[in-house]
Amino acid sequence: PARLEFLDVDSVEGMVDAIHRLAVRGAPAIGCAGAYGVVIGMRGADAEEPQQAGRRLDRVAAELDAARPTAVNLGWAVRRMGSCGHAFLEGGSTGGLQTVLLEEALRIHEEDAEMCRRMGVFGASLLADGDTCLTVCNAGALATGGQGTALSVFYEADRAGKAVSVFAPETRPLLQGARLTSWELMQSGIDVTLITDGMVAAVMAGSSVAACVVGSDRIAANGDVANKIGTYGMALLAHAHGIPFYVVAPTSTIDPDTPSGPDIPIEERDPVEVTAGFGPRTAPAGVQVFSPAFDVTPAAFVTAIITEKGVIESPDMESVAAHLAGPPAALPGQSA
Amino acid sequence: PARLEFLDVDSVEGMVDAIHRLAVRGAPAIGCAGAYGVVIGMRGADAEEPQQAGRRLDRVAAELDAARPTAVNLGWAVRRMGSCGHAFLEGGSTGGLQTVLLEEALRIHEEDAEMCRRMGVFGASLLADGDTCLTVCNAGALATGGQGTALSVFYEADRAGKAVSVFAPETRPLLQGARLTSWELMQSGIDVTLITDGMVAAVMAGSSVAACVVGSDRIAANGDVANKIGTYGMALLAHAHGIPFYVVAPTSTIDPDTPSGPDIPIEERDPVEVTAGFGPRTAPAGVQVFSPAFDVTPAAFVTAIITEKGVIESPDMESVAAHLAGPPAALPGQSA
Repeated sequence: PARLEFLDVDSVEGMVDAIHRLAVRGAPAIGCAGAYGVVIGMRGADAEEPQQAGRRLDRVAAELDAARPTAVNLGWAVRRMGSCGHAFLEGGSTGGLQTVLLEEALRIHEEDAEMCRRMGVFGASLLADGDTCLTVCNAGALATGGQGTALSVFYEADRAGKAVSVFAPETRPLLQGARLTSWELMQSGIDVTLITDGMVAAVMAGSSVAACVVGSDRIAANGDVANKIGTYGMALLAHAHGIPFYVVAPTSTIDPDTPSGPDIPIEERDPVEVTAGFGPRTAPAGVQVFSPAFDVTPAAFVTAIITEKGVIESPDMESVAAHLAGPPAALPGQSA
Repeated sequence: PARLEFLDVDSVEGMVDAIHRLAVRGAPAIGCAGAYGVVIGMRGADAEEPQQAGRRLDRVAAELDAARPTAVNLGWAVRRMGSCGHAFLEGGSTGGLQTVLLEEALRIHEEDAEMCRRMGVFGASLLADGDTCLTVCNAGALATGGQGTALSVFYEADRAGKAVSVFAPETRPLLQGARLTSWELMQSGIDVTLITDGMVAAVMAGSSVAACVVGSDRIAANGDVANKIGTYGMALLAHAHGIPFYVVAPTSTIDPDTPSGPDIPIEERDPVEVTAGFGPRTAPAGVQVFSPAFDVTPAAFVTAIITEKGVIESPDMESVAAHLAGPPAALPGQSA
């Protein structure tokens, strides 16, 4: 929260490390980083034999893909880069491969920015002027190649003249809510109030919360949502208080190969993030720690999933499949 | 978590400060501290006129009572000390007043220890060998004059040969779960796993949790429970998962003069505990913060209140009043 720094990454190992230790975080941003990681990893490939370059491409892609297990965008972006590279190599030459890969990575990045804007507009249409919302973690510009997923909804509401107030839980252990979301929203002049993770229910009981708006790291084919630890609890609490619960994520986050929530691998983080996450030790030496990075919210507790293609109300196997197969909806309020 | 220190307090101001900044914390411990604070504040009173000593007694009691607003035990203990002192002063002399007050404070402390043991035995009778439990904050030996309230249940279960495993949320902002509960339970050889506050729902979904066992800072006449922020959310999540939710507190925590939860004053804490609770700043400068110290759990979500007199199942106005008026139950398992 004290410094804005830019990190230059110039090797595949550096990118894997940046993704693994969360210097790059947020599922869509990890996808962009993975795509650029392929570009970095293929430097000099224009001078290689096509077969050699193809093997290097597979190796670089596998290395990047393994950096984090839960976010589906990473694998999606890296596979797309691999397909692009292999398609080019089928031409029998490596000359120009680097340019083609860089263009594909830039395209992924630009598509991400446009998708963020669209998700924001679809989401903002569900909010009213004066609404108070809750989010979790950081699903904003610091998590994507654009203006974010969940936070894009607040940015587009603001742009449409709807004043929104946001409660941001700090999101232990790594405090993305405190360090990133509150900073981002303050920068954009959006009213934000920081709370601790244990205060979510009290906020719902004491304030008139219009909606919870969160991102996602992977959505299963049946609409179950993996997202930052704490999301499932927030969804249950929203349900108990009759508050709509919206998940905002690009369709690339929906994984048709993952049938349901229990099939999503959940990364466990290093206990030291819990016991000494701020520098000084805040728990006894040797204490047992359980620290899943994500939890799974069953689709039954998700009011709607908002993608760049539109809104999936009451998501389930059928509505999610129809959304993926169908055409994008027209953006609402384009006449406004 | 790194040091065990004893704090000597030798003035009323010092005690008020210790209570206010949570050097003494936990409702029953605050009651004991308030009682000893009266003893400290009345030093030298044996040499005063009775009227003068009576006025000093009222002033000292008022000062201590104001140190924290939510915990009812503080007012209860300080009023009991005041009544004791005034009753003595009606004899027309101050000689021996200090001894009488010290004896009363020691009695409050000893009663607290015995009550803790009894609450623990009543609570442990509701647990089975091998049970996994959740608690919140610290309602243990570091919060009372004895072995605690909620944690006493685990100590007595252990003593009765029932192995229990406990998940302890760290309890931001002040991390009583990380710093105190995990330490206390480790010291006692009870299996404890530290989690962040946002992991409660994931633990309930992923493990077989037999019960939530928490303390309380004030219980209203209708059974609504004020306790550490996060308790209300845990109660709703327990309800959603079909997990019993037990509140363990002495009858002195039940305030017949507080009709229901909304009548309980909720203290707001300093934002700096959230933005820089660990030394380094973890949120942007100037961010708005909402930091209630407690929340209120409606009685409907409380499976039972466990006091030193026994167990109030499905607490409501009638059952709570009957419990307060009735005789203590026989301790279970005394033949074991």
